[in-house]
Amino acid sequence: MTVSDCVFCAILDGTAPATLVYEDETVAAFLDIRPITRGHTLVIPRDHATTLDDLDPALGGHVFAAGHRIARALRRSGLASDGANLLINDGEAAFQTVGHVHLHVIPRKHGDKLTFAKGFLLRRPHEPTSTANAIRAGLTALDAEEGAAQ
Amino acid sequence: MTVSDCVFCAILDGTAPATLVYEDETVAAFLDIRPITRGHTLVIPRDHATTLDDLDPALGGHVFAAGHRIARALRRSGLASDGANLLINDGEAAFQTVGHVHLHVIPRKHGDKLTFAKGFLLRRPHEPTSTANAIRAGLTALDAEEGAAQ
Repeated sequence: MTVSDCVFCAILDGTAPATLVYEDETVAAFLDIRPITRGHTLVIPRDHATTLDDLDPALGGHVFAAGHRIARALRRSGLASDGANLLINDGEAAFQTVGHVHLHVIPRKHGDKLTFAKGFLLRRPHEPTSTANAIRAGLTALDAEEGAAQ
Repeated sequence: MTVSDCVFCAILDGTAPATLVYEDETVAAFLDIRPITRGHTLVIPRDHATTLDDLDPALGGHVFAAGHRIARALRRSGLASDGANLLINDGEAAFQTVGHVHLHVIPRKHGDKLTFAKGFLLRRPHEPTSTANAIRAGLTALDAEEGAAQ
């Protein structure tokens, strides 16, 4: 179910632009248009839920699973990610700015404190096409690694 | 599996103190001893995993599910939570300070920006026993609500 005045539902409907990095039947992930660091990705449920209180627990699990996977893919992406911050701001009181649940996955690297602080203030896009390609390559590398381990 | 020099594994083994708010076969949740806001809770997997890269995806799902549930319980807890920040700092580059994956659930309320900023700097405990009792009461209220809806 999508909601007509929701910008993230519009992305899911294809009526608003976004650079997708991953999608399946239950969730989608795309680059934040105001990234704190390069590769900053948002994971959202396809069914609209304004807050975690409205979100089906199983669907929440899918959102987190995709975020977990993207965090692991980032480490294999060539974006030089040594880790990530995974964050849900749930409710306006918690600084949620779009009323559709979204999980931030913000890649981090060692010694990036100043870059991170600058990114937090400026939030400028970083070549979305090559960034998304790098994340997709990380996901493919993770798939291959898991396939080889079986 | 627990690891001998890990403080969170010591909590799970009962050899280090903590104020538990929830536990089951796969995860445990306890109050952060340096809370940013009252009710700041950490959810951890029972099996030691240093980072998300080491964490079994299904177990990660259990951690998130417990955090999702605690966020919903906080809204019913009497701690006046209007929302929460759910956060995993994955890797030292992302400010992870204890090497055992943990999900922060940080209750927020409208207009708490100054309290939040102060809590971020001071991180003082707030009556852990009554705080944990309030969260447990929120979980019980959520159980009752879900039971009534069935």
